[in-house]
Amino acid sequence: MIPVVLASENSAATQKWLNVIRQHFPDLDAHVFDPQAPNAHAEVRAAIVWKPPAALFSRYRALDLVFNMGAGVDAILRQPDIPQTARIIRLEDAGLANPMTEYVVHYLSRITRNFGVYEQHKKNRLWQGAEQTPVQNCTVGVMGLGVIGARIAQALSALDYPVQGWSRSPKALPGIKSFHGQAQFASFLASSQFLINVLPLTDQTRDILNRDSLGQLPEGAVLMNIGRGEHLVESDLISMLDKGHLSQAILDVARQEPLPADHPFWTHPAITLTPHISGPTNHYLAIKQIRDKLHDALQGKPVSGEVTPDSGY
Amino acid sequence: MIPVVLASENSAATQKWLNVIRQHFPDLDAHVFDPQAPNAHAEVRAAIVWKPPAALFSRYRALDLVFNMGAGVDAILRQPDIPQTARIIRLEDAGLANPMTEYVVHYLSRITRNFGVYEQHKKNRLWQGAEQTPVQNCTVGVMGLGVIGARIAQALSALDYPVQGWSRSPKALPGIKSFHGQAQFASFLASSQFLINVLPLTDQTRDILNRDSLGQLPEGAVLMNIGRGEHLVESDLISMLDKGHLSQAILDVARQEPLPADHPFWTHPAITLTPHISGPTNHYLAIKQIRDKLHDALQGKPVSGEVTPDSGY
Repeated sequence: MIPVVLASENSAATQKWLNVIRQHFPDLDAHVFDPQAPNAHAEVRAAIVWKPPAALFSRYRALDLVFNMGAGVDAILRQPDIPQTARIIRLEDAGLANPMTEYVVHYLSRITRNFGVYEQHKKNRLWQGAEQTPVQNCTVGVMGLGVIGARIAQALSALDYPVQGWSRSPKALPGIKSFHGQAQFASFLASSQFLINVLPLTDQTRDILNRDSLGQLPEGAVLMNIGRGEHLVESDLISMLDKGHLSQAILDVARQEPLPADHPFWTHPAITLTPHISGPTNHYLAIKQIRDKLHDALQGKPVSGEVTPDSGY
Repeated sequence: MIPVVLASENSAATQKWLNVIRQHFPDLDAHVFDPQAPNAHAEVRAAIVWKPPAALFSRYRALDLVFNMGAGVDAILRQPDIPQTARIIRLEDAGLANPMTEYVVHYLSRITRNFGVYEQHKKNRLWQGAEQTPVQNCTVGVMGLGVIGARIAQALSALDYPVQGWSRSPKALPGIKSFHGQAQFASFLASSQFLINVLPLTDQTRDILNRDSLGQLPEGAVLMNIGRGEHLVESDLISMLDKGHLSQAILDVARQEPLPADHPFWTHPAITLTPHISGPTNHYLAIKQIRDKLHDALQGKPVSGEVTPDSGY
């Protein structure tokens, strides 16, 4: 049995993980982090966390394998107390890429094929096809070509959309035109009618969706942000929408979540909002992935998804 | 130059085909069927049609290659005047399978992930995830596993839905549990929470969605009909919805199109209606496919998609 501590900002979530482990993974001896319990954790090398309390790292000094219950590790990298020697391993896919792809197809097709109009047509007893944007006229630009971005790009390409991607380092994906680095950012933007952000949040990508970059998109472009709220300068988006340079935005994330009640996004007619649900973690798949990586790490094998703190992901 | 006559119930459509041919396929010498023109068409062996007027076949006696501008050939097989010797070739995919797949993902995910709720949440300034049906609890049954059904089945399987298919003859598709024939229809239905019909319309499949078959679906099942209106006994659907055995229906087709203004579908709260737009033909891809097949047929090569009038597709 491998001892593991579970810690998150949300005790209902931690309890769910514990239930999944007890039901499916008897090789793990898991317990939930308790800030009141006495210090006696020298044997616990592994933690499964999501936005863990800072006290975790001061109390569990032997932690050297920290598994993040999500793809984005920005929150954990902000922890001041995390031991320098700890390896941080993020979730790779684990059921995230498919629901995010489904989300993208749903909201992209709602715009290109005008599906929403038929609800009104039904009320008016109107049997009439709506204006559609032919796929060949809707180039989709995907920012971020990791596991999730690549899956989204390939699914849209398989649906006949012209798809291009932009990432930090060069990537080669069949059928996807790839741009990389700062030098190619402008030409990527200029040809993306529908921009989807799935970048990791790092010091380099924070605020990357701003007046300047959004202004380089073609007139009438649509922004979909399913990365992190901090990628987007929210007031810049609103002014781009208000001046008509962008036609719509679909936002699954916000700088402050839950979105404050007085935030202008709530009432903006060109903004579609969802409450950070594009990629719900499948706890079973996530913990299975972590368990397998934990076994590998303890046997000295290489583990994929290990975070390089300097790069931020 | 190969002479070709174009005929459909809709002159705007025929004009579109003509424009595509003139722009892209100079090897075809196309003209639109004109019932007033004198009879002098002995050299015209090929027609491109969609619900053509009966007079076409009495006036063009040399037609032996009839290309249907759609996948469903039920309308053309009802023509009494079509020469016994004419070969009827239906469209295979030609851009239909992908938009139909997109349509399915859109409306399926709208139900399993409750995306529609977030429009109301936005009005209420509510940042809260809605109830979702985990994919593993939503087995999708696809009726019809031709080019279109197979594409839909595989796309949903790639999104982690358990997918099963039912067809006349046995099919083997990776990851798709396959049922076939009358004997396996009941067990297919009993395990399909979400039933998608893409069967061709034949004497065997007309009225196949009726009180008896719909009653064998699990309690709370959802029906999506993107095949033909005549597959569905419409009053049986309404009674199945009203008694709560089915929870929802998404209908892209109806027995009478446009749907009559007094039809009960318009006001039924559990029915989503779209006006036969799930698979819009891409005229360029369609005519390119027909042109290629026409060349093959004139050279005596085998042509796929040829209709067997006895089977009805």
